[in-house]
Amino acid sequence: MKSIIAVDAMGGDRGPAMLVPATLEFLVGHPDAGVILVGDDEAIRAELPDSFASLENRVEIRHCSQVVTMDESPTRAMRTKKDSSMRIALDLVKAGEAHACVSAGNTGALMAIARFVLKMLPGIERPAIVQALPSMTGSTVMLDLGANSECRPEHLVQFAVMGSVLAEAVGGVDNPTVALLNIGSEEMKGNELVQLAAEELRACDINYYGYVEGNDIYEGTVDVVVCDGFVGNVALKTSEGIARMISHFMREEFTRSMGSKLAAVVAKGVLKKISDRIDHRRYNGASFLGLRGTVIKSHGSADSIAFGFALEAALSVSSRNVPELIGERVLQLLAEQAQ
Amino acid sequence: MKSIIAVDAMGGDRGPAMLVPATLEFLVGHPDAGVILVGDDEAIRAELPDSFASLENRVEIRHCSQVVTMDESPTRAMRTKKDSSMRIALDLVKAGEAHACVSAGNTGALMAIARFVLKMLPGIERPAIVQALPSMTGSTVMLDLGANSECRPEHLVQFAVMGSVLAEAVGGVDNPTVALLNIGSEEMKGNELVQLAAEELRACDINYYGYVEGNDIYEGTVDVVVCDGFVGNVALKTSEGIARMISHFMREEFTRSMGSKLAAVVAKGVLKKISDRIDHRRYNGASFLGLRGTVIKSHGSADSIAFGFALEAALSVSSRNVPELIGERVLQLLAEQAQ
Repeated sequence: MKSIIAVDAMGGDRGPAMLVPATLEFLVGHPDAGVILVGDDEAIRAELPDSFASLENRVEIRHCSQVVTMDESPTRAMRTKKDSSMRIALDLVKAGEAHACVSAGNTGALMAIARFVLKMLPGIERPAIVQALPSMTGSTVMLDLGANSECRPEHLVQFAVMGSVLAEAVGGVDNPTVALLNIGSEEMKGNELVQLAAEELRACDINYYGYVEGNDIYEGTVDVVVCDGFVGNVALKTSEGIARMISHFMREEFTRSMGSKLAAVVAKGVLKKISDRIDHRRYNGASFLGLRGTVIKSHGSADSIAFGFALEAALSVSSRNVPELIGERVLQLLAEQAQ
Repeated sequence: MKSIIAVDAMGGDRGPAMLVPATLEFLVGHPDAGVILVGDDEAIRAELPDSFASLENRVEIRHCSQVVTMDESPTRAMRTKKDSSMRIALDLVKAGEAHACVSAGNTGALMAIARFVLKMLPGIERPAIVQALPSMTGSTVMLDLGANSECRPEHLVQFAVMGSVLAEAVGGVDNPTVALLNIGSEEMKGNELVQLAAEELRACDINYYGYVEGNDIYEGTVDVVVCDGFVGNVALKTSEGIARMISHFMREEFTRSMGSKLAAVVAKGVLKKISDRIDHRRYNGASFLGLRGTVIKSHGSADSIAFGFALEAALSVSSRNVPELIGERVLQLLAEQAQ
């Protein structure tokens, strides 16, 4: 087996009832992968399907007694939930028993515990939440999507390095272009943070493009878009909101009258393809980059299709050794700067 | 005539060839409105259609010799373009000859000159760019959309007052709910700016809702969403980008094969309704609030349909005396705070 994924089988809104079957389904399609289902032994076993026998040699169940709840404070979760499914899944990555951890649980707690258990890579001060978003020309790696609501310029530079490595290693892009998200493309535009970060990026060995604006994320202008976690999270949630509104309008218009319902029947195949392309479930699975190990966060409300994509992400990121590559790249940059 | 609108007939990507006919078209639909077309007399007259005779008593042409270009620095435009169409249109508002100014020109220059000519309302330190965006339940007033890339908490409070007045006066909403845009709804979330602004808003006589996230803009959770101009501009441009990408995907899928082209023909009416509902031209016309006068900025790339909506916005905002109402409301709040 090439990759072992530790799955927090208790996290998220749907718990083991969704997580366990979705994980086994993923194994069927990935004969090289194995999983460790972490959580309440009884709750997990109750969800094992009959088809489990054929996968048994690739599944381990690791019992633990606690669960981090969705609204628990990260500090409290870290201090009092040492036998939680989230903590044990991360411990497994730390111990080298698993190559990646996937959780649909409490984002803040996952971030805090991951930082505590796995530690940061040398040269990286803050972890970032990263996702590949769809674009007209393929996909755009974007970070930070919410881990750091206040950043200093050097953090954005570190995000640029991490995003660049991810786009190259997982996205297969050669020498990816990296841009800073701003509110205009002219040099004097924006706030102090992006202006100072731009100065540092121009001096770095990174394929720095300059500034881009919000629309460029989806136009595919560059391979990697960098911003602080406040701006990134607003952009991501705003995108989800407008995509949902457009889907809502489409549903309304296609069910308005007998004629439009008939049109919906005729156009069914095409509409399905469109909704598949903009289906946010395909983009589920955000990486926490900057840690000494692969941690993937699934949406708490993910269904089994969405959770399958988060498991895919765990496999891609860990099998391409993204954390190690980031570590090497950062050390290189630091060495260049020291010269 | 109730409302006179001063139109910068030289601004934007398309100039008088689009602006003049679009303005006359607007007059046909609004028998109470009059306009002053400001710009090069000859260039404007060259674009007057034959139907002009019937509107002549509601149209004045004010010749001027200069144009502010799209890439000119605001400072330079202010100092050296005192006989530009933009400047004269604003002077007309200042002098009381027009009730509003509409320009599709250079945003930064329009903002700087408007501030210089019209001045700020007492109690408002910064103008904000405001727009009503579509939502699942109607529309959401959002500000600031890009005038201020760095804000202090009291600026967000002033934006909240201005947005609230606009939603009430133009949107017809009674006691509108106002929220701060954040990256989570819990009290401890976000950066220092929103946390301090939230504290001030809770103490204010405003229907303060709390925090909302990006998706809430389009879900219609509240009537007014407040943020700094950096975040607001990114959210707006990101929305435009993803809406354009979805339209692009729809076009691609509906033209992929003979079958899908046939489906497009059958669904044509429904698709037209959907594309009308998400047509960004309908939302063209951002108000610069906080000034002693009504200034509306049209997209530089607006076509005649979009520009018509900007003229509508000018009519609504000026005929409902939004600047005066904001001025009164701010003085009230200051008086309460002084007690």
